[in-house]
This record gives sequence, C-alpha cells and structure tokens, in this order.
Amino acid sequence: MSIQILEINYILNTFLLLFSATLVMWMAAGFCMLESGLVRSKSTAVICLKNIVLYAGACACYYLLGYNLMFKDVGLWIGTLDFFVFPNIEELKLLSGANVNLQKLLSTGSFSLAIVFFQMVFVATTASIISGALAERVKMWSFFIFIAVFCIFIYPTVGAWTWGNGWLSQMGFKDFAGSTIVHSAGGWAALFGAWLVGPRSGKYNKNGKVVSTPASNVPLATLGTFILWFGWLGFNGGSVLSLSSVFDVATMAIVFFNTNLAAVGGVLSALGLSLLLYKQVKVLLVLNGAIAGLVAITAGPDISNPIFAFIIGSIGGVLSTLAIPVLEKFKIDDVVGAVPAHLVSGIWGTLAVGIFTEASFKIQLIGVVSVGLFVLTSSAIAWLIIKWTLGLRVSSSSEFLGQDITELGIEAYPEFLNIDDLHNKQ
Amino acid sequence: MSIQILEINYILNTFLLLFSATLVMWMAAGFCMLESGLVRSKSTAVICLKNIVLYAGACACYYLLGYNLMFKDVGLWIGTLDFFVFPNIEELKLLSGANVNLQKLLSTGSFSLAIVFFQMVFVATTASIISGALAERVKMWSFFIFIAVFCIFIYPTVGAWTWGNGWLSQMGFKDFAGSTIVHSAGGWAALFGAWLVGPRSGKYNKNGKVVSTPASNVPLATLGTFILWFGWLGFNGGSVLSLSSVFDVATMAIVFFNTNLAAVGGVLSALGLSLLLYKQVKVLLVLNGAIAGLVAITAGPDISNPIFAFIIGSIGGVLSTLAIPVLEKFKIDDVVGAVPAHLVSGIWGTLAVGIFTEASFKIQLIGVVSVGLFVLTSSAIAWLIIKWTLGLRVSSSSEFLGQDITELGIEAYPEFLNIDDLHNKQ
Amino acid sequence: MSIQILEINYILNTFLLLFSATLVMWMAAGFCMLESGLVRSKSTAVICLKNIVLYAGACACYYLLGYNLMFKDVGLWIGTLDFFVFPNIEELKLLSGANVNLQKLLSTGSFSLAIVFFQMVFVATTASIISGALAERVKMWSFFIFIAVFCIFIYPTVGAWTWGNGWLSQMGFKDFAGSTIVHSAGGWAALFGAWLVGPRSGKYNKNGKVVSTPASNVPLATLGTFILWFGWLGFNGGSVLSLSSVFDVATMAIVFFNTNLAAVGGVLSALGLSLLLYKQVKVLLVLNGAIAGLVAITAGPDISNPIFAFIIGSIGGVLSTLAIPVLEKFKIDDVVGAVPAHLVSGIWGTLAVGIFTEASFKIQLIGVVSVGLFVLTSSAIAWLIIKWTLGLRVSSSSEFLGQDITELGIEAYPEFLNIDDLHNKQ
Repeated sequence: MSIQILEINYILNTFLLLFSATLVMWMAAGFCMLESGLVRSKSTAVICLKNIVLYAGACACYYLLGYNLMFKDVGLWIGTLDFFVFPNIEELKLLSGANVNLQKLLSTGSFSLAIVFFQMVFVATTASIISGALAERVKMWSFFIFIAVFCIFIYPTVGAWTWGNGWLSQMGFKDFAGSTIVHSAGGWAALFGAWLVGPRSGKYNKNGKVVSTPASNVPLATLGTFILWFGWLGFNGGSVLSLSSVFDVATMAIVFFNTNLAAVGGVLSALGLSLLLYKQVKVLLVLNGAIAGLVAITAGPDISNPIFAFIIGSIGGVLSTLAIPVLEKFKIDDVVGAVPAHLVSGIWGTLAVGIFTEASFKIQLIGVVSVGLFVLTSSAIAWLIIKWTLGLRVSSSSEFLGQDITELGIEAYPEFLNIDDLHNKQ
Repeated sequence: MSIQILEINYILNTFLLLFSATLVMWMAAGFCMLESGLVRSKSTAVICLKNIVLYAGACACYYLLGYNLMFKDVGLWIGTLDFFVFPNIEELKLLSGANVNLQKLLSTGSFSLAIVFFQMVFVATTASIISGALAERVKMWSFFIFIAVFCIFIYPTVGAWTWGNGWLSQMGFKDFAGSTIVHSAGGWAALFGAWLVGPRSGKYNKNGKVVSTPASNVPLATLGTFILWFGWLGFNGGSVLSLSSVFDVATMAIVFFNTNLAAVGGVLSALGLSLLLYKQVKVLLVLNGAIAGLVAITAGPDISNPIFAFIIGSIGGVLSTLAIPVLEKFKIDDVVGAVPAHLVSGIWGTLAVGIFTEASFKIQLIGVVSVGLFVLTSSAIAWLIIKWTLGLRVSSSSEFLGQDITELGIEAYPEFLNIDDLHNKQ
Repeated sequence: MSIQILEINYILNTFLLLFSATLVMWMAAGFCMLESGLVRSKSTAVICLKNIVLYAGACACYYLLGYNLMFKDVGLWIGTLDFFVFPNIEELKLLSGANVNLQKLLSTGSFSLAIVFFQMVFVATTASIISGALAERVKMWSFFIFIAVFCIFIYPTVGAWTWGNGWLSQMGFKDFAGSTIVHSAGGWAALFGAWLVGPRSGKYNKNGKVVSTPASNVPLATLGTFILWFGWLGFNGGSVLSLSSVFDVATMAIVFFNTNLAAVGGVLSALGLSLLLYKQVKVLLVLNGAIAGLVAITAGPDISNPIFAFIIGSIGGVLSTLAIPVLEKFKIDDVVGAVPAHLVSGIWGTLAVGIFTEASFKIQLIGVVSVGLFVLTSSAIAWLIIKWTLGLRVSSSSEFLGQDITELGIEAYPEFLNIDDLHNKQ
C-alpha cells in the first residue's frame, strides 16, 4: 500500500479513537444526571461532586499506573508496574518537527495517546457505575479511596486478562466493548459495597417492607439516560479501534445499528414487563431498561443480524427489571439500579455471545465467573479495609439531614421549598 | 479511481452517516427536555416516558416495516411490504471475514445499515414533534398507537414519494433534509390531533380568553432548544449522505453554516417581533424562533448564499411567532408550539426553495399541498379510529391531578412543594 | 501528491472544522446551564434568554463585520471593514456544479465557510464568559449592546493581532486555542463590567462581609461544566485547523489528551485547596477548577509531555480558587466565577507556554499585557458609554423581585414554592 494511503489510515484510526473517546467522556455527564435525578434532593449535590471528582480521579489513577498494568507487557495475569504513558520516540520526533521514520511511526496504526485516552474514559465509566449504588449513605472520602483502588488495580487486572491479551483473551473469551470487563466489573464492586454499607435508613419499614424513596428529579434522570445512549454509540463503536478498512467501517456501522436497537429492545421489554408485573408503566424501569439493553449488547455488538441484537437487548431489559425486586428482597439497597442494569445485564450479554455467535459458551462463562470472583473478592477486601479504618457509612444524623448539608455544606436546590421543610417548620 | 481511494470513500461515507445519525439520535433528548420544560410539572414524567418510548417505538416500527415501505423498490407511490433490513450478501461476507467482491461491495457507496440507521433516527424526530402538541391530556397508549401507525405507514408513504424516489421526487420536488417530509408531516399530524383532543381544561376561561399555563422549567426548555440546534447540524449536514468528494464536503460545509445562521435569524426575528407585539421579550417565543429557523432552512440548507439562509430562518421565526395567537384563536391548544415551529415554518421553508433557488415554486407548492393533504387525511382517520375505540382524552380528574400521578403513579419532582400543593393544603 | 490524495486532505480538513465547530457550538449550552444553575432562581430565565440571544447575536455580528476585521488582509493591527463572507469563486462554481479549477480550489486547504463557522463559534464562547459575571443586575439590553461592540470590534481586533497574523503573531506570541485571545479577553470585559455595575444588593452586609448567595440548581451547574469539558475537546482539538497529515492528527491527539488531563488537574487541585482553605469540599469551586484547568491548557495544549498539561491545569485550578476571595475583597461580584476561571487562569496558561515550551516568556507576557490593556480600555469605554446613556443597572426593586419577572414577565420555575414566597406569604 502506498505510504500516503497508510498515512490516511493512521489519520482515520486516530480520529476514530478521539471522536469515540469524546462521546464516552460525555457519558460521565450521563451518569451524573441519571444519579442526580434518582437520588433524593438532599443527596444531589454530593452525587454531582462525586461524579466529577471520580471522573477526574479515574483518569488520573489510570494514567498514573492503571494503563501500564493493563496493557504493558502483559503475560497471563497483569502488565507492568510503571508510571504514566508518553508518546513513543517516533511520535515525539513528529511532534517536535524532526525527521521521522514514517514506516515505524505508522506501524502502530494510530497515535499512542489516542488509545490511552480511549481506554482512560472507559475506566471512568466503570467507576461511575459504583457511585450510584451506594448513594445517600456512603462516606464521600471512603468512596473516593475505593475508586482509586478500583482504577489502579482491580479494573486493570481484569483488563489485562482480556483486552491486555492475558489468559482469558488467549482462551478465546470475547467481550467486544466490555459487558463484563467494564459493566459487570463495576457491578460486582457496587453489589458488595451496597450490601456492606447496608440499606438507607427508612428504606425498609419495621415489617421489612420496602418504603418508596421516589426519584427527586425525573427529567434529569431521563436526560442522563439519553446522554448514556448517545455516548454508548461511541463506547461500542469506538471499540472497533480502527477505521482504516472497509471491514472496520462495516463493523462500526453494524455496531452502531445494533447498539441502538438493543437499547430499543431494552426500553420496550421493560415497558411491557412493568405493565405485566405492576399493572402500571414505571418510567424508571423503562429508563433502566434502556441502559440494560445497552449493557447487554456491549459484549457482542458486532453480531451481523440486528434481530439478535434486539433480542439480546430485550432480554437485558427483562432481566434488569426482574432483578430489582430480588435485590430488594435481599435488603441490598441499590439506589439507582446499577446492579440490575450493569451486573445482571452484563453477565447476560457476555453469555449471549456464547449463544448467538460461534464463541464458546463455556469460555464466556469462565470469563464471567472468573472476573466476577476476582472483582468480588478484591472489592470485598478493599471495602472491608476501608470500613475498618475510615468507616463506610455516614452518621445517621448526617443521613437524615442529607450529605449535601453535612459533607458539603450546601443544598442542591436551596431555594425550592421541600416537603420535609414544610413538615419540619410546622 | 484506484480501489484504495474507493475504499476510503466508502469509509468516509459510512462514517458520515454514523456521525450524523448519532447527532440526530441526540435530538430525541432535545425534544424530551424542551417538552419537559414547557409542560406543567404535573405532566412532566409522562413527557419523559413518552419521549423515550416513542424514540424506541419509532425505531422499532420503522425497522419492522417502515424502511422497506419507504425505500424498497418504490414505484410512484410506495415501496414494498417487507420485514426488516439486513446487510446485503457482500456485506455479510465481509463481516464474517470471507472473501468479498470488493467492487460490488463498494458500489453501494456506504454500508447499508448506516443509511438505515440515519433514516431511522429521522422518523423518531418526526414522531417527537407530535408528542408535545398533545401533551397534558392525551391518553398515553392512544398516543403510542398513533405513533406506531405514523411510523409504519404515514411517514414512510410521504418518504417514498420523495426520498424514496417516488412521484414527487420524479416531478422535481426538493426537500433536502425534510422541512416538509419530516417537519410538516409531524406538524400536520400534531395539528389534527391537538384539535381533535381539544384544549386542556382551564386553557380558556369562560369568556374564551387564553389563561396562561406557564412553562414549569425554563432552563430545561432552553437546554432542549440547544440540544436540537446542536443535533440539527447532523440532521441537515448528514443529509448530504456522502463524504467522498470535494463537492460533498463543500455542500456539507455550506449546510452547517446555513443551518446555524438560519437558527440565528430565527432567534433574532422572534426576539424583535416579540418586542413589537408584546412590548416584552418572551423567552419561549425566542426558543421557538430558533427551532422555526432551523425547520425553515431544512428544505434547502445547501443554498450557496448564507444571507438567504439568514433571511429564510428569520422569516421562519416571524411566521412561527405569528402563528401562535392564530392557533389560540382557533382554540387549538398546542402546548409546546410544535405546529408553529414545525408545520408553519416547514411549509415556508419548502416554498422558500422555490423562491430562492432554481427549483420550481409550483412543484414545491404541489409537494407541500399533497403531503399536507395525505398526512392530514391519514392522520385524521387514525386519530378518529383511536378516539372511537380507545378514546383519546384522559378523564378530567386525571387531567386535573396530572397524568404523572394517574398514569404513572409518580411525580416528576416529588419533593418540591408546588404552588397547588400549598393551596390544596390550606 | 496525487490530486485524489489532495481531495481527501481537503475533505478531512473541512470535516474536522465542522466537527469541532459543532462541539464548540454546544459549549453555548454549557455556559447557559452553568450560569442558570449558579444564579438565583429569580434570575434564571433571563440567563437562559441572554445565552441563546448572545450566541445568535455573536454569530450575526461576527459574520456581519467581525470576521473580516479579524482575518481579511490584516496588516499589523486590524483587517478590513467589509461585510459578510461568501464562498470564493471556485467554491461557488463547485456548489453550482460548474467546472472547477481543482488545483485552485484545493489550495485553500478547506472550504472557506467551514473556517468561518469555526471562528464564529469561538466568538460566541468569548461572549458567553461575560454574561455570567454580570448576572442578576445588569440591564438586559445594555448587556446585549456591549456584546455587539465586543463581537464586532474588540474581539476581532485582538484576534487580528494574533490569529489574523498581526503584530503579536509576527513577534512570535503563542496562543494555540485562545487562553488569552478568547478567555482572558472575555475575562477582562467581564471584570470591568462587574466592577462598574457593582455588586448585587445584599451581596455584602453592613460590615462589608460577604453574604452567601447560594447557587439555585447545583446539578444544572454540574451539567454545564460537563458540557464545557466535552465541547472543549473540539475547541482545542479543532484549533489544529487541519487533519491532512500524520503531524496534524498527532497534534490533535496530544491536544485531546492534554486538554482532558488539564481539566482533571484543575478538578483535583481545586478539591484539595478547597479542603485546605475551608476545611470542606466546595462543589462549586471544584466545578470552577475544571474550567480553570481547561482555560489554562488552552494556550498550549500541544505540549508533548502530558505531565506538564496536568501541572498547568492544576495550577489553573489553584489560581482560580485563590482568586475568588480576592475579587470578593475588592467588592467585585462575579456571580459565576468567570474572572477567576477565564481571566486569571487564561493569563496563567498563556505565560505557562513561555515556561514549559521554547516560546519566549517575555513575548507571552507582552501578549497578555497588550491584549489586557486593549480589552480593558476598549471595554471600559464601551461599558461607560452604555452606563451614561442607557444605564447599566436595573432598578433595586427589579433586582429584588428578580429580572425574570421584571424584564421577561415570567418565572423560571413558576410552580415550585420558593423559600422567599413562603416568607412573603407569612
């Protein structure tokens, strides 16, 4: 191929990564709005703070150590303990205007930091999954410390096994854009954390029945869902990682199409099931159904029959809807439905690749189980150490007043009279 | 041309469609936020639910039947009643890694499902137009059924006449990105629906005068407008449909430029006119002016003189502003101003192509009238059948309490004390 | 190079500009949401109106005269007083389907109006900076007139000196995407305006101490910050201005990476400093830290070591956090922290290019000072003339009731009971 064509390939590959990473970065806003809308207003400002700080922290931790642990000279289990990533020698020459060995430069396919950026925004997504589940009662700093451990060590380890070309990848485990690697991993950490920290006080009444804790801002939660849907096209589409051949772009096209259709399936199945189970359309279940559909297709969005994508997404919507009362039964208070949407649907999506494509179901199952065991165990250790040292849970008076007041000293909506304000003042 | 250049063309064409479709998908969030902000808070959660479900439903219906009715072997009137679209044989070979007849693959210009995705998000836009006009009193399920009819049959028919290369297109009718095909079509369906379902109770007082029903959340409505403006660049820009020549990209550039400038014109003219008519700046008229400007330019955003684009958009802003009191006079209660912005300005924009370019004004008028008659008639039949079977309007108690409570069992902002709450409690 | 490769280069360059301009356009929504969330609810609708009108007005003014003053035949000081920009002759031929001198067409590198659009959205950004600082007490129309002067004359002059290739550029002044040209320029205009119009009544008590005026909607402000972060990738990334070589795309990649990392640094440093200074995490300082980090890196996002980007952004976060109490001490009431984030951090970022790269610190300083003096002086003249003619400040009763009611006749959230409502009613 002529060098000029190779240059264009390099340009397109790099541009794809930047474009897609930008969309995935934007998903941070989606998680923030979704969670802000779903929690009660007394906990909203903390959610905002947590989401922007966790995005920043996840980027910093991953750049500090995580990326190299995940990708640098991975054998079977983990990469290299090494700080930061810098442009390689040819890239530095290029940027400084010096003469470049073009063949060598182009051999990597795309600019190194474009791929680091794309991977970096993925870890921020994983971290976002955790924040919602533990909302309204976890100590802010305890949460941040967990996120650091997660982004530096837990996620990169799982990533090394798979995208880093470690043992799971070598076995043939398939997880295109991370139903397991990103979503289930975040989900397992959220599950253990939510269990350990316990339900919000008042979530269950004396008889153990669930007391409704209505979402404080439905349009904000809806906006968050739309942002996630939008950004997810880059999340899955960018995971093609290159745009230099008709095969690449065809894969990207089918990925976009399937991703959208799976979310459609998740919406419609959650809508139908919510009618069936509750004789009422539950808007929050429908929003969660969209996310579950997106999570479900993420392991295999390159499947060539879109009907399968629709089915996979629909089943994701069904499973996440069914998982919510199950969690509640076990007294696990997952405030935003992160575990049903990301963990349950992530497991389903990963197994679905073993059902609907030539990938081995057994190997998919091995991947799901091994990632699950590792993340659950390592998260449990981290959560427990944090609990025994800093403590995990805010005081009950802080929980009653809301973390916004007690941890940040502000209110999210200070001027709007709240129903509780009225009661307190009367 | 060398095969490698043809491959790059194919890549760029497909990427353009995916990029643009992503922006158009995002417009669904824009409609949702705009409408959520414009309705009263007791109807906001239903608007959120409706917008995400209608996006999903529109995609599903269009994929099920609509696309083939619009594009597959259209003679003069309509395409083929056939289910779903799948990648073609060469594309399937490519995706499966088999040997491909590259010449044949490349002959379509872009990957088939990329274009299906782009068309699919357009039908979702059309459907969104309808939801706002009938807000706060139409039965949710009746609305969804209408949307299904609209997306499976009404819109694809109009689309077949035009973009499907049917009789109107063969006559020389020009509608670049759909002032008529998308916006007026949605607007006619909204107009008849809003008339049939009748105004919200309390919209007119005993003397027939309009009672103000203030928008419940102005920043949300503003956000929605900005989202639409942003996404519209992809809506019009992507309608170039290819990016493989300097002509394509030049067209795309002028389209982006004109689209933005027409919205600018719409904002400024609505601002000026609102001052003139009401001696006051009306922020909601200004927001609607932006949308009207965008709708107006959509039929001919490829005009080579941007001043014309500014003028076309400005007149769109004027007409939509003037149309609002006219509708009110006829007791048509269009809650979000969809008819002024999409129908009135859409008609204007389509005719403007006959004024400012070489296109025939007469043929543009034939297009506007024939699409109008068809959509109005078919929508009327659908709305009437729904009215006589399921009913169209919620009970007056449901309307009084708000559909959020009665149809979904939740409130959009459950914690904020509402002015009515106070009255009820005193 | 073959003509086909040149065509592809032209396509990619133009597409980059359109893509990036779209992201920058979206920043208008970011400023609008940020400011809407930060002001009190009685001033929110005016902020919404101001932000959409200023975007439209900035585009119109810049297209009318500003672009030519900034770029057309600039000698040392300013370009040409000439109306509008149109496609050039070859481009018009191309659009009309006539024969084109391809060599001549391609010689400009990209389609003319794509670059005009990209520059146009930049001036809208600058204008947005000003609106927040003077919020809640500046007369709407006085503000709009200032914006027109700023977009037609003040910003284009500074732009001509630099990006228009005038005297500062010829000296070697470096400002990649506008820490000084865009952000400080807006900041200086905001600073003088905020000082001249005086603090909001009630901002200082009788003893001169600051009275807290809490942000009315924290999630909206957070959303605005995320939108700005997202759009900023296009703001800085698009400033590469072309995408036709591996050097271009490598620069773009490092720019994306550094831009994100600088914002990360700004978040983390503002978080740390807010803890240190106030023994409490201040969510609004953290949001402002993100913006300050972004502003700081904007002068030199193409630095090849990302650690420097992190440091530059972090120092931006520190400086903006420190600047807030300084402004308050001088009784300058900058409602949204625009001066700390855009002016202070913009100066720092511009100087940082003289510290961390080979650029001359002295010349950077000359740029900062000369732009500062010019903008400050010309803004002062404009603000003062407006003050002496139309007046700058709304009446104290209008300020007390809120501009939403007095200037627009609506409320941003009419249904939510406000704390003041309760007091007034009791």
